[in-house]
Amino acid sequence: MGGPVLAVLGGGQLGRMLGLAALPLGARCRFLDPAPDAGAGAVGELVVGALDDPGALDRVAEGADAVTFEWEGVPADAARRLAARLPVFPGPEALAASQDRQAEKAAFARLGIPTAHFAAVDSRVGLARAVDEVGLPALLKTRRGGYDGKGQHRIDGADDGALDGAWGALGGVPLILERVVPFTRELSVLAVRDRARATRCWPLVENEHRDGILRTSRAPAPGVTPELQGRAERYATRLLDEWGYVGVLAVELFDVDGELLANEVAPRVHNSGHWTIEGATTSQFENHVRAVLGWPLGATDAVGVSAMVNCIGALPEPGAVLAVPGAHLHVYGKAPRPDRKVGHITVTASSPDVLQDRLAQLSAHI
Amino acid sequence: MGGPVLAVLGGGQLGRMLGLAALPLGARCRFLDPAPDAGAGAVGELVVGALDDPGALDRVAEGADAVTFEWEGVPADAARRLAARLPVFPGPEALAASQDRQAEKAAFARLGIPTAHFAAVDSRVGLARAVDEVGLPALLKTRRGGYDGKGQHRIDGADDGALDGAWGALGGVPLILERVVPFTRELSVLAVRDRARATRCWPLVENEHRDGILRTSRAPAPGVTPELQGRAERYATRLLDEWGYVGVLAVELFDVDGELLANEVAPRVHNSGHWTIEGATTSQFENHVRAVLGWPLGATDAVGVSAMVNCIGALPEPGAVLAVPGAHLHVYGKAPRPDRKVGHITVTASSPDVLQDRLAQLSAHI
Repeated sequence: MGGPVLAVLGGGQLGRMLGLAALPLGARCRFLDPAPDAGAGAVGELVVGALDDPGALDRVAEGADAVTFEWEGVPADAARRLAARLPVFPGPEALAASQDRQAEKAAFARLGIPTAHFAAVDSRVGLARAVDEVGLPALLKTRRGGYDGKGQHRIDGADDGALDGAWGALGGVPLILERVVPFTRELSVLAVRDRARATRCWPLVENEHRDGILRTSRAPAPGVTPELQGRAERYATRLLDEWGYVGVLAVELFDVDGELLANEVAPRVHNSGHWTIEGATTSQFENHVRAVLGWPLGATDAVGVSAMVNCIGALPEPGAVLAVPGAHLHVYGKAPRPDRKVGHITVTASSPDVLQDRLAQLSAHI
Repeated sequence: MGGPVLAVLGGGQLGRMLGLAALPLGARCRFLDPAPDAGAGAVGELVVGALDDPGALDRVAEGADAVTFEWEGVPADAARRLAARLPVFPGPEALAASQDRQAEKAAFARLGIPTAHFAAVDSRVGLARAVDEVGLPALLKTRRGGYDGKGQHRIDGADDGALDGAWGALGGVPLILERVVPFTRELSVLAVRDRARATRCWPLVENEHRDGILRTSRAPAPGVTPELQGRAERYATRLLDEWGYVGVLAVELFDVDGELLANEVAPRVHNSGHWTIEGATTSQFENHVRAVLGWPLGATDAVGVSAMVNCIGALPEPGAVLAVPGAHLHVYGKAPRPDRKVGHITVTASSPDVLQDRLAQLSAHI
């Protein structure tokens, strides 16, 4: 029934939640995903195909009003191909920068956004030089393709054995060495920019990772001063402006005793923003859809306090979760598998104390 | 991907919003609707067929975990047919009562719920007798099938001409005469009961109709004392208990200088509850799904203040609506047509004054 069509590259849970946000706005998403049972298929047409298959890209974009993606692993060439004839948001430049840790860190440095010491590593000799330059302990990472803690190797000693081990584990592809930051906590800022260049940021989120996978997010992050919030927003806004960005951008930050160091960006809606569905006036998903389709942004203020808990590997019993006051369940429609995010739960409350009580109740079930 | 399946009789906007609420819970809706382009088809499988077609009913119920409906015009026989083998919530008894204004009013009277004077009318002679008994002015209504102000005739004088006119307009089917109530305002209470018999009510809503069609709802209704809220909740709860009800029930009430008179019930999610999507901790749609699938209910408290405005006949320009702070657009995916509800807008705010400002901004666009 009329309404704009948004082509989405990728059809996982982020696509599914984009689709759920798009429908009330009168827009429809059409997804491209290699999996015929991709979870987003429940909320829009699903084109089954590889993200680098020109024919599949043409099919998903056919008659669409705009193109976006739910995964930063989308080949930048695919985005460029579509950008030749349709608005693709965020643009291929932001996508390309976020796919290369070296380009990403270089953008931070260029824009005056503090980050950990880093150096590109392209050889065993270069690794030794980078260790001298960056300092230890440090993480050797692949410049491309790592996520959820994969593609990383920690280096604690500068001896040949340690460096040989790291090089042996990862060497042969472009690498980056990053100084390990003794952070107090991990934060993220979700920001969004529309086609008229208006920007908004949600309150800073506090994130807890375990084994490289995000477990819980709390928002607004406790103890954030307006000054800290403002600093995070300035960093995010510099990136949005630099890239002529349209849509939601997530910036992961280390809080080191009040100093903020940018760790990485995700040029898409982000797991640490899932709390916004219930916990903010406008969710990251709705604002992303608004932005890429050319509509004005909604308010990003928090409503009460929220915590988001990922369901990893398996889903809890829904009845037990829903019995917890303020609990909202989000099932992704994915088959359970170890370390796979198959859903999340957001718990909302009017105060941090009430939230803590509710999380304690929830912890008995997941 | 696993998860319960909910068969929904009817695939209009209420079904669509039930489907949007079901998906995050890991449930899927399958809809039965005669229209191949029914709006709910965007959020679940759509079986195209008549609501009284046994074969279509069998297809929509195939493998389902429960059955519900989004329209009280569903033939009670269809509900009974499915209830023989599947849980059907709300039950056929509530459905049948709500389809007959006489049975509905009789239930109010039996349960001590105040209502306007009324009398059944089955003949021209009976009409004169009913006018004596009920008093004037009064509304002559068909016992079945009227909605949005259709199937009604107002009687102001007891003379033969007036009664002949009313009888001529509606006579020949079972009728009811209801005294016109000089109400201060129209309210509604949305209530929900789960399979474990727990009940919850949302805050009272103030509704404004024009030409028999709901235009706006405000929640919580201004100036409602805890006593008034409690009284409305007791009335709703009596009906829920009487009918062994499971799911959301809406009770329309007249507020006559603080006296509450029940007008009618809708055994389903209701237009005057749409504000709960953004304005309450748990929406009527989510709680209906939770109830009928056997999950515990979520909290029904309001978050701030809200107003819901129906889009009737045509949709406003989305960008203009979304530019209003706190505005949330809901498009139903229906072709525009005069007097047809094609969407709604909920505006949320932290205070009634802010809400009023935002509604004034919105009114320039719809």
